[in-house]
Amino acid sequence: MTETLEAAAPLAIDDATADRLFRTARSVTEWTDAEVTDAHLRAAWDLAKFGPTAMNTLPLRFVVLRSDDAKARLLRYLPDGNRPKVEAAPATLVLAHDAGFHEHMPRLFPVYPGIREQLAPDTEARDGMARTNALIQAGYLIVALRSVGLSLRPMNGMDFDGVDAEFFADSGYRSFMMIAAGLTEGEGTEHPRLPRLALDEVAQIL
Amino acid sequence: MTETLEAAAPLAIDDATADRLFRTARSVTEWTDAEVTDAHLRAAWDLAKFGPTAMNTLPLRFVVLRSDDAKARLLRYLPDGNRPKVEAAPATLVLAHDAGFHEHMPRLFPVYPGIREQLAPDTEARDGMARTNALIQAGYLIVALRSVGLSLRPMNGMDFDGVDAEFFADSGYRSFMMIAAGLTEGEGTEHPRLPRLALDEVAQIL
Repeated sequence: MTETLEAAAPLAIDDATADRLFRTARSVTEWTDAEVTDAHLRAAWDLAKFGPTAMNTLPLRFVVLRSDDAKARLLRYLPDGNRPKVEAAPATLVLAHDAGFHEHMPRLFPVYPGIREQLAPDTEARDGMARTNALIQAGYLIVALRSVGLSLRPMNGMDFDGVDAEFFADSGYRSFMMIAAGLTEGEGTEHPRLPRLALDEVAQIL
Repeated sequence: MTETLEAAAPLAIDDATADRLFRTARSVTEWTDAEVTDAHLRAAWDLAKFGPTAMNTLPLRFVVLRSDDAKARLLRYLPDGNRPKVEAAPATLVLAHDAGFHEHMPRLFPVYPGIREQLAPDTEARDGMARTNALIQAGYLIVALRSVGLSLRPMNGMDFDGVDAEFFADSGYRSFMMIAAGLTEGEGTEHPRLPRLALDEVAQIL
């Protein structure tokens, strides 16, 4: 019945893409040895950057760990369950938000002169805006990384303060998530897909 | 130069889809009179629901306002600038997070027996988890709504407490965003696209 409904749905993208981005995409635990290249990262960002944010604030920042040395700097802040995934993945992105996003606003949101100065005094408000919009951007980035063919394992089990001190001490960015990424052969996981909530369980249509 | 780089990128989706979901998609202000149907909403959710969340918590909830009466209930909580968009759009989704998501966990995350009971006592922690993951899901939902051909205007200028009292008094959901949606002819906005940050401004590759 579900398949019939999905087949009847007015998708504006092709079925293979709907599968790749959403329907058959899985949070994987195994990757091939193929590298995550600069071109992968650039292509993914060149999609994700266009996702809408409030006042075009674009507060998402990230560091990409590919070398063993770089990964080792992250591993010490992870619980046991997440370490093997970072060790196995060709790359891990550590996502963070930048409460200093307002410094870019004269360029990013020129339609509102003075917005940088208006936001500057309220660090707490900026931190909230940055976290909110960076999380939405994390959703875009996950879809964008899949759009360049990567298979992902998003995780948020980590010592955020430790990670911030390790990677973001100078910038003041605050981490909230990591995404292990690489290429897979087959499904990339042995776990069956978990259930999802149906539309009428999450939405009311008035 | 940018176009050359994008053309050279290893996209796993076709260019028309990359445009529709990200590159030429815009936050619009004008829609046609065509309805946003139940089939649009079902098809979009049947994509977005598969986006990964921490422990498969799926805390995003939403109400869809299509009738004039339903829209009128929202309009009173909006600043002047956002009212015309909700009035013009065939549908507006009000997104919220459900701190009571743990009640679904025995079904959604059966691999962790007892997680419902473990989460139950800490309302504040659940509220934070719900908001974090619902925001990531908002990113998925925006891409999914575009995947069924809809053009969107995400907005967060609203009286959240007022909206919660109006729509979520019984459920206890907490609103964080709205998305006006419909079909467009042409770009759907007269505003030029705002600039974006480049990869080397947001990411460090180690």
